[in-house]
Amino acid sequence: MAIHKRGRQSFILAHQPVIDCWASVAGKKESEGPLADTFDVTSQDTKFGQASWEQAEKYMQQLALNTLVQKAGVKNRDVDLVLSGDLLNQCIGSSFSLNNTGLPHLGLYGACSTMAESLLVASMVVGGGFADRVVAMTSSHFASSERQYRFPLGYGGQRTPTAQWTVTGAGAALVQSSGTGPRIESCTIGTVTELGIKDAANMGPAMAPAALATIRAHMEDLGCVPEDFDLIVTGDLGQLGKDVLMELANRDGLNLGGKLTDCGTLVFDCVGQDVHSGGSGCGCSAVTLCGFLLGKLKEGELKRILFCGTGALLSPTSTQQGLPIPGVCHAVSIHCGRD
Amino acid sequence: MAIHKRGRQSFILAHQPVIDCWASVAGKKESEGPLADTFDVTSQDTKFGQASWEQAEKYMQQLALNTLVQKAGVKNRDVDLVLSGDLLNQCIGSSFSLNNTGLPHLGLYGACSTMAESLLVASMVVGGGFADRVVAMTSSHFASSERQYRFPLGYGGQRTPTAQWTVTGAGAALVQSSGTGPRIESCTIGTVTELGIKDAANMGPAMAPAALATIRAHMEDLGCVPEDFDLIVTGDLGQLGKDVLMELANRDGLNLGGKLTDCGTLVFDCVGQDVHSGGSGCGCSAVTLCGFLLGKLKEGELKRILFCGTGALLSPTSTQQGLPIPGVCHAVSIHCGRD
Repeated sequence: MAIHKRGRQSFILAHQPVIDCWASVAGKKESEGPLADTFDVTSQDTKFGQASWEQAEKYMQQLALNTLVQKAGVKNRDVDLVLSGDLLNQCIGSSFSLNNTGLPHLGLYGACSTMAESLLVASMVVGGGFADRVVAMTSSHFASSERQYRFPLGYGGQRTPTAQWTVTGAGAALVQSSGTGPRIESCTIGTVTELGIKDAANMGPAMAPAALATIRAHMEDLGCVPEDFDLIVTGDLGQLGKDVLMELANRDGLNLGGKLTDCGTLVFDCVGQDVHSGGSGCGCSAVTLCGFLLGKLKEGELKRILFCGTGALLSPTSTQQGLPIPGVCHAVSIHCGRD
Repeated sequence: MAIHKRGRQSFILAHQPVIDCWASVAGKKESEGPLADTFDVTSQDTKFGQASWEQAEKYMQQLALNTLVQKAGVKNRDVDLVLSGDLLNQCIGSSFSLNNTGLPHLGLYGACSTMAESLLVASMVVGGGFADRVVAMTSSHFASSERQYRFPLGYGGQRTPTAQWTVTGAGAALVQSSGTGPRIESCTIGTVTELGIKDAANMGPAMAPAALATIRAHMEDLGCVPEDFDLIVTGDLGQLGKDVLMELANRDGLNLGGKLTDCGTLVFDCVGQDVHSGGSGCGCSAVTLCGFLLGKLKEGELKRILFCGTGALLSPTSTQQGLPIPGVCHAVSIHCGRD
């Protein structure tokens, strides 16, 4: 048996899975942002023609999956496994999107780190020979998240300066044992890390310590340095969380130099679109990866990135009970697939 | 690269992971039931000394993990990965139990199928050489589940005849690349299956079609028959769901004979303990496996079982929106490890 484990938290892929294809679905606000041209499907209707925001989220995942298999030129029945999860209570966006499709499904919960978590697990499933063709998928919706985690939109609450804007969107990536395209080289599994932040409208700084812990673990376990990457891309720290991560890294002696960026600051024009600290939600890193980032890797404009999905593991109940917000971050090293 | 995939939904383990050790924690009602002697830790305090039921659930997982590593004679830092999830919104039982422990964690959401899902994923992680020592863990709590899915206990609502009683308990299993003990031979990943049941107090029948689909897929993919197993054990169909599964299987020409049993009917004396249709919840199959079933396998009293975790993928929101209840079932074939 091949041993892939490296160090405490990481593994390498002896046979590197290929991200053969990807698809993204995005909402109105996202379609007005800097990445508008990179989405496969957009809608000006925040309900996507469905009866509720939760159903819209389900529908976005269905759209993302259908678009993905069409782009890949395969059929639904060619997909061996769908790995997905979302922010809705009990992940109903994911489970209802796959209802009665006959597609094998393993549900994940990593909050906004789900795109990275699903890619990471997909790389083990494919890299270990347990399936040939695996879809990694997730979604989020601004309105369903606000209602669930904070206040229903109808209340018209004032957003605080540290708030982020949950991305309405879904992303899906097809991970295969062979093919052409960006390849997954190695991954680092995160630890649940929390430094005491309790404000559910300040999640970037709550997740920053987890991001640092995972980036550091990746470098240590695999003997690499930030300079080995064109970009180190966190999931949804937002501007404030990114600043906190830079400061924590500097204090810790880890120079992230000009490598660090964050999907939450890429997906929106933070000032022009009035989203305060930036984008957030599972969909934030999902639509940024499954379009802009994988596109740049495919074209060879990026050679190697460390995709670091970040998740805030709070719940409305934990917030109401006054508990702090633990964070988690999973990292996936993706190479362009060219020499 | 070894190819482990078999058929549409299944895989075999060329190098069979070993369930080296297990631990269970259970509440007051469970400690008065038929499996009382098989639990490692029990408490007569439904809050386990914590401030809330949700915190009690977190604490049960901590107790289960600590008991597990003690029984196994290892340290926390020897554990490479914890795979866990639970029924609480955003799985806070799992994430908070691992907060600042430094343990690598991948969160799963499979509702009450989580014990099987976590074992299944653990078998891929260990069987694929991505980690040596993985903990599969989950929990549920009667009071937190009732409050979240149905009504707060303080309302004193009348339970319907089809209702099941969520087990207060946590189970944890240590899956290793080597060692002695029961071995995981093969697994089948479930599909999200739903036949229209909408009553959140009638979840056994809602999950029965998914259980049938997965048991059938296991037999077809791996060329086996029910007679190859000493027991086919579903997670938490309860008496009613088990009856429905038997009838669906009979109609479908699959003779489960005397092989079928269900953790929901094993963990409680359904009549004597007034739990109506039986036990349910992630903890139901977790405490039944991580004690009674694995104990019987270790002793050789059972040679081979098909452990079929069943999950109802509803949420309070989907129930309020009048949606039906999709089910899922993941199957793990476990051998006693003796010839």
